Amino acid sequence: MSLPLDELTIIERFLRPLAGEGALRLLDDAAALTPPAGCDWVRTTDAIAEGVHFLPGDPPGTVAKKALRVNLSDLAAKGAAPLSYLLTLALPAGTTEEWLTAFAAGLAADQEAFGIALLGGDTIATPGPLTISITAIGKVPEGGMVRRAGGRPGDALYVSGALGGAAAGLALLQGEAVPWRALGPAERERLIGRYRLPEPRMALAPVLRAQASAAMDLSDGLVGDCDKLAAACACGATIDADTVPLDPALAPFAGDDSLLALFLTGGDDYEILAAVPAGREAVFEADAAAAGVAVRRIGALAEGPGPMQVERGGRPLGLAQRGYVHGAPQAGR
Amino acid sequence: MSLPLDELTIIERFLRPLAGEGALRLLDDAAALTPPAGCDWVRTTDAIAEGVHFLPGDPPGTVAKKALRVNLSDLAAKGAAPLSYLLTLALPAGTTEEWLTAFAAGLAADQEAFGIALLGGDTIATPGPLTISITAIGKVPEGGMVRRAGGRPGDALYVSGALGGAAAGLALLQGEAVPWRALGPAERERLIGRYRLPEPRMALAPVLRAQASAAMDLSDGLVGDCDKLAAACACGATIDADTVPLDPALAPFAGDDSLLALFLTGGDDYEILAAVPAGREAVFEADAAAAGVAVRRIGALAEGPGPMQVERGGRPLGLAQRGYVHGAPQAGR
Repeated sequence: MSLPLDELTIIERFLRPLAGEGALRLLDDAAALTPPAGCDWVRTTDAIAEGVHFLPGDPPGTVAKKALRVNLSDLAAKGAAPLSYLLTLALPAGTTEEWLTAFAAGLAADQEAFGIALLGGDTIATPGPLTISITAIGKVPEGGMVRRAGGRPGDALYVSGALGGAAAGLALLQGEAVPWRALGPAERERLIGRYRLPEPRMALAPVLRAQASAAMDLSDGLVGDCDKLAAACACGATIDADTVPLDPALAPFAGDDSLLALFLTGGDDYEILAAVPAGREAVFEADAAAAGVAVRRIGALAEGPGPMQVERGGRPLGLAQRGYVHGAPQAGR
Repeated sequence: MSLPLDELTIIERFLRPLAGEGALRLLDDAAALTPPAGCDWVRTTDAIAEGVHFLPGDPPGTVAKKALRVNLSDLAAKGAAPLSYLLTLALPAGTTEEWLTAFAAGLAADQEAFGIALLGGDTIATPGPLTISITAIGKVPEGGMVRRAGGRPGDALYVSGALGGAAAGLALLQGEAVPWRALGPAERERLIGRYRLPEPRMALAPVLRAQASAAMDLSDGLVGDCDKLAAACACGATIDADTVPLDPALAPFAGDDSLLALFLTGGDDYEILAAVPAGREAVFEADAAAAGVAVRRIGALAEGPGPMQVERGGRPLGLAQRGYVHGAPQAGR
């Protein structure tokens, strides 16, 4: 279980160049930060493991970026601007210097792209799969965090971007007999890219703070995650499945109920689900457009609690399962 | 790789009862905290993996406590008072409800004992070993964090408590042919307890803030960790091995140079190593005694950088290795 390089060498060669202010050049056991005045800190933790959240063949640079971006996506959904992050790397014995070099380069590129710096962390050897756990820290104006539980009956439900692409890409990587195997190579690569490299919607953060009553990011499929948001709000909900924006490459397959259901319950979208109070929809849509993020109204919260209903043409859409469980066999695949 | 219970059930049954203020009952993806006025936050991250930092047979309650305490120990060394923590649990498929119940009970007991609450985290399935990663958050008065790099030549070096017990206990658990196998069962159990359940020196935190120029906790053996502290201070150092406080059960074996070397380079002590400027030693010793923590002067920082020397009776002590690498085969065992 020993590593190709000892922990100190890994820190010095690969991680120290990523360290930000307050990280004491990663030479200490802890990091100190003086909070910005008038702000709250928002913290979120997400871990990804090889074979569960990414695949053994995935490029190390996209693995690094995915580990960071799934946390950035949480910050965006909470209305927070990114500040810094802590990184726990559990590395198997076979980890090579080439892998670490490309992994660190991926982190460096995304630190630059998203304005976030490494604050500290821990590197351990593991007999198990490569696992990356990140705690990301962001800031919001005091009291400004967008909660999951703030929605009320009658609030409109919105999603950002387009759904289903990541789940469709994962199915391609796993060699499943899905009809979109027949797409051209560029489209197949693009779907795989949606799985490997989520696009956190940071530009939506201030819009959510100003207009949304509740929000969360979609990691485990729209339906199951909407169940969670509605439950946190003690509401029921209805989604009109035909209004859900799907990845353009998948639209031709969405006429089939079971394929549509798969796009609405597949994981790794990392888009935003938001509740917006009645009367604010037009402002929310205009602000999101001004921020450069497409949003689409897909349903509404209802008196509750529960159940959350997914309808197509006025009848319930059949769902083999409501959400995606990373690493578990998927029903209906 | 599916879990015996889904993530939501695990959160609801085992983790929500541990949630503190600001954790939003663990119903959100993130936690918000308003910083206390006039304070800095100190953050530290440490992970432990089965087969690397604890053994498959270890009781789940002590595994939970060890995961938390290795982080509390870092906070103590930095002069910080504990506030809250984030928990990432990577659970293998074989994890049982009994294990989770005992694990959560261990966390609950230590939360009460140390005044810290769960703020959030992530639970994932893993095909690998059980891994627990904790980010602990503490507070210090603004600018008050005790750094690893603050020591100067001439500062006295102190350690808290007594060393070697954890390494001796691990050797017993691993069935090694060590002479302390001949100790009585109560003493053997006590040494094993030193490995499984470190005692973080929280009471020393304000004393370190007031008197120490540099400090760190000892996780990878006194010699190697003192190398790191001296290097961070750009100093050399000398340790007089005969003055290092050893676990009382081990004193009879310390006449043997190679066994003494093992006690000074074994891991998991989780005692504090501190540098104290000349002239403040008496106050530091009195304050530590008033806080109920035994401290012993073991050497001093010197002009440097390096090397760090370990002497016994005026000659260098032979060392097969300088530090303990968790999970790697140990030289001289």
